[in-house]
Amino acid sequence: MYTKSELERFVEQAKKYARYGKVADYIPALGKADPNDLSIAICTPDGNVIDAGDTTHKVTLQSISKIIALALVLMERGEQEVFRKVGMEPTGDPFNSIAKLEEVQPAKPLNPMINAGALAVTHMIAGASVEERFQRLLQFVRKLAGNPTITYSPEVAQSEFETAFLNRSLCYFLKQHGIINEDVEELMDLYTKQCAIEMTCDDLARIGLIFAMDGRNPLTGEQIMPLDVARICKTFMVTCGMYNASGEFAIKIGIPAKSGVSGGILAAVPGRCGIGIFGPALDEKGNSLTGMKLLELLSKTYSLSIF
Amino acid sequence: MYTKSELERFVEQAKKYARYGKVADYIPALGKADPNDLSIAICTPDGNVIDAGDTTHKVTLQSISKIIALALVLMERGEQEVFRKVGMEPTGDPFNSIAKLEEVQPAKPLNPMINAGALAVTHMIAGASVEERFQRLLQFVRKLAGNPTITYSPEVAQSEFETAFLNRSLCYFLKQHGIINEDVEELMDLYTKQCAIEMTCDDLARIGLIFAMDGRNPLTGEQIMPLDVARICKTFMVTCGMYNASGEFAIKIGIPAKSGVSGGILAAVPGRCGIGIFGPALDEKGNSLTGMKLLELLSKTYSLSIF
Amino acid sequence: MYTKSELERFVEQAKKYARYGKVADYIPALGKADPNDLSIAICTPDGNVIDAGDTTHKVTLQSISKIIALALVLMERGEQEVFRKVGMEPTGDPFNSIAKLEEVQPAKPLNPMINAGALAVTHMIAGASVEERFQRLLQFVRKLAGNPTITYSPEVAQSEFETAFLNRSLCYFLKQHGIINEDVEELMDLYTKQCAIEMTCDDLARIGLIFAMDGRNPLTGEQIMPLDVARICKTFMVTCGMYNASGEFAIKIGIPAKSGVSGGILAAVPGRCGIGIFGPALDEKGNSLTGMKLLELLSKTYSLSIF
Amino acid sequence: MYTKSELERFVEQAKKYARYGKVADYIPALGKADPNDLSIAICTPDGNVIDAGDTTHKVTLQSISKIIALALVLMERGEQEVFRKVGMEPTGDPFNSIAKLEEVQPAKPLNPMINAGALAVTHMIAGASVEERFQRLLQFVRKLAGNPTITYSPEVAQSEFETAFLNRSLCYFLKQHGIINEDVEELMDLYTKQCAIEMTCDDLARIGLIFAMDGRNPLTGEQIMPLDVARICKTFMVTCGMYNASGEFAIKIGIPAKSGVSGGILAAVPGRCGIGIFGPALDEKGNSLTGMKLLELLSKTYSLSIF
Repeated sequence: MYTKSELERFVEQAKKYARYGKVADYIPALGKADPNDLSIAICTPDGNVIDAGDTTHKVTLQSISKIIALALVLMERGEQEVFRKVGMEPTGDPFNSIAKLEEVQPAKPLNPMINAGALAVTHMIAGASVEERFQRLLQFVRKLAGNPTITYSPEVAQSEFETAFLNRSLCYFLKQHGIINEDVEELMDLYTKQCAIEMTCDDLARIGLIFAMDGRNPLTGEQIMPLDVARICKTFMVTCGMYNASGEFAIKIGIPAKSGVSGGILAAVPGRCGIGIFGPALDEKGNSLTGMKLLELLSKTYSLSIF
Repeated sequence: MYTKSELERFVEQAKKYARYGKVADYIPALGKADPNDLSIAICTPDGNVIDAGDTTHKVTLQSISKIIALALVLMERGEQEVFRKVGMEPTGDPFNSIAKLEEVQPAKPLNPMINAGALAVTHMIAGASVEERFQRLLQFVRKLAGNPTITYSPEVAQSEFETAFLNRSLCYFLKQHGIINEDVEELMDLYTKQCAIEMTCDDLARIGLIFAMDGRNPLTGEQIMPLDVARICKTFMVTCGMYNASGEFAIKIGIPAKSGVSGGILAAVPGRCGIGIFGPALDEKGNSLTGMKLLELLSKTYSLSIF
Repeated sequence: MYTKSELERFVEQAKKYARYGKVADYIPALGKADPNDLSIAICTPDGNVIDAGDTTHKVTLQSISKIIALALVLMERGEQEVFRKVGMEPTGDPFNSIAKLEEVQPAKPLNPMINAGALAVTHMIAGASVEERFQRLLQFVRKLAGNPTITYSPEVAQSEFETAFLNRSLCYFLKQHGIINEDVEELMDLYTKQCAIEMTCDDLARIGLIFAMDGRNPLTGEQIMPLDVARICKTFMVTCGMYNASGEFAIKIGIPAKSGVSGGILAAVPGRCGIGIFGPALDEKGNSLTGMKLLELLSKTYSLSIF
Repeated sequence: MYTKSELERFVEQAKKYARYGKVADYIPALGKADPNDLSIAICTPDGNVIDAGDTTHKVTLQSISKIIALALVLMERGEQEVFRKVGMEPTGDPFNSIAKLEEVQPAKPLNPMINAGALAVTHMIAGASVEERFQRLLQFVRKLAGNPTITYSPEVAQSEFETAFLNRSLCYFLKQHGIINEDVEELMDLYTKQCAIEMTCDDLARIGLIFAMDGRNPLTGEQIMPLDVARICKTFMVTCGMYNASGEFAIKIGIPAKSGVSGGILAAVPGRCGIGIFGPALDEKGNSLTGMKLLELLSKTYSLSIF
């Protein structure tokens, strides 16, 4: 069905849009990316991975990590506890907005895909220390991808740790309102490491497949996360996975997906495949411009929309 | 599969929640509803309708009409023209909010399911007069439901016309910003008639089936609306069909649906069935409390979630 | 003290800034003004008027009328009734903003100098018909200026009546929340006539003197408005008379003043003089750029700041 | 003119309102105050202080310190530099609001009396260390009050330092937008010490007199701050000194004043006197309820309004 040569053709087509995008430059480590890079991998239930582009490139998860941390925390804490601290509603505001927290009472982040909500989720990762909590998350990521060598970029983590003033602003606001109660610097340490976990788009595709298969690894038969958790995550991917372009993405492409400002996209086509993309040319909302083009070509060609 | 006796049992279960809800009372005609009313109909691709509760009760469409008007306008004008005047993004704000129109430039309603967006959509219904435009919409509704006797309640329309100050405020705001350019009183006349179209939950279920079958009437084989239009409508149902509880509804129930303050819900389970509900006991966000309970029971029992 | 030749010198100096300003063009009648026009009149307690520039030009009051309508309504209704419908607090938002009405409960305009508040004030002008209410206001204006020939520009009123969509939006919002309860078109008729009352800057200066003298006409000895009313009006002039540049104006110039988008400014230096200015070159907040320059020169030269 | 016995009578009258107010309780040190406490001091240009109530009670400055820090920074940096980092406009929002910072571009606090603006001002206090900067401010306070024994409450400072999450949120937001660039913990250290400077209402009255006399100590003849700085401070006291009740205060009382959540009020009647009040029973906006009653009685009796 999906052939490497077709993927390669799609990559060439999508690359033409690179010049309309811009690499994220708010941290030096991301700014070094080449906007013309574009790679994709598709992982099918039989475990096969078809890819195209320079798939040796590694991408840091950034906001993609939000959906994985959410899955972990839902497993560890249960729906009820998690949704006491973070809501389920999409928002028309940018991902880093603080205004809504003040307007709506109580000051509970609207959903776990905006920064405020993601910080509340990471806050809930259990463990006695930042190190222990981070290892727990990293082990979960490795298990999802079936790749025990996945690690994080200390350089990117450090760079973000030093400049994440807006996230600290959100953290203190949440602390004021009792949503989080840990030391903000510790939470920032954990959160920036989480965002700096890096992998290839093959790894991303394998993780996508687990979500696509309702939490089950189709090769080993292991249920890595409960069906309900996988379903909740896919729902958030649809309603708020692509920042405040999620609505348009749902209409035009219709695949549960989560993007990051590094240019990565993790997508899960229910029952069919996982998709990993790395294309650092971003549009003004922070989504990979070339990556979305690529997904649009795939979705139209293979009728992948869930709607 | 779906049996009448099971539906009747579900109705009894869901009715218990009626006392936590409240009938909409901002217009006298709606205030007369009995909060303990609850009826449901399911229409399957073979055209069979199974229903339960007092299904002779008629419900005015109210906000449910937004999704039908959107389908009509997408057919008449095309995606490009429609989305020049209204956006595709869900919003965390209440359906009747005006603040976002001022905050975001240009002053384009975020999506067609909030009032501002729905008014922009109704504005686009073609025709030389309010009467002609309304007849076009009504014919479309009748065709979707396969019921040429459907009409509207002049009493409800009149009552809303006289009290719709907030909608007029939205209209003038949109007119100031060039989103609409017709006479506001004419648009209000058309819009309040649109909202006052009334039908039984059997009719609602039949309309839901058309959306569920990608726009095709499975009995006659007629493609009543193009596949793309049906898909766009279902996407909006998921991302913003249940007011600012759409996110939670997607997670807990996962069925494309659109509700109205009359207590009606139109739902479309892709490929499987259309569902019509009438339960006027509303929660504080304006959704039918008993209706959502009923859909939750159905979704869990028959695994109807699209996620 | 104030000499005509000095005023003429100031006018020449201030005129140089005309090219940084822009004439209001949202209604044709205002757009015809010449940005290089600039005239000023100062009326002292002995009744003398010194003026400079082309003082035969007439200016429509526009927002300047808000402070006069407020005085009338405070006299007719009393403080308590007036401040039930409109607040006393300055706002950092633009004069035509609607967002704050939605954010703050109850939906009471923050002050009578923003459009929402001014509409609520005009709504309170007593009378059996628009015509009777307008005549009452006009008589009051004539009495303040000591000029029975003052009237309004039907052309400007009509032009604004036809295009005032944003004000209609505010009216319906206020009607929804019970702040006003009259027919919106009638209120708009009255409000646009109020805004279109026109006079020379000599007239403006004479009205300013009445406020400066605590409501008393120093020549006739007549108390045209109670001291408390005059004081309240001067306070609003300071805290919100110059749109959302009032704070800066208070610091740099420190004279109670009210401006209009026609380029007019009415100022009252307590105990010392009334000032009328007409300079249609506006800054981006809607205040007369040349007029403010002129007031700054006057305030610095004659130490007119109340602070 | 002002007699002790009359002041004592006013204090008794105003105390009756204590039961409608509430002591600030967000930090333990403030929560221990007795809502029935009420003291006042008036300092006239001849240096006489008349007081009433238990004037040995000390009050921490809290937000009153904002106006003193502003005066210091205006002297040290000049108007131009200060107003590059903080605006001059009143706002209808609460003093600790963050939403407006996000809505308005650039993210410059609207004025120096809201917390965001005050933090930007304190950030500008010059010095090589927190200690040196604090000593500079403290020396300035002592000079204004003519009392070299004034110091701060380490207990209150520490208590606020530990709980000031919202202020830290504001600081990081300002840091993100380049308004401040120092270490947030150092700024919080300095700011909480500034807020914890404590004094009697006699001291407050003496400071008020300096502002009332345009920056000059009438006894020594020393110009402690330039006339322009004193005038700017009094203007801010009028437009935004009493939180988002400043407009009402200006209308009803009309005296330049600054309040703090400790229940203190510093007031300056131009050319006539300085007033210090301590009354910890607060209204819902954070102003001393009994203190404002007292000022209203004074203002009405002695016609102290500047309007």
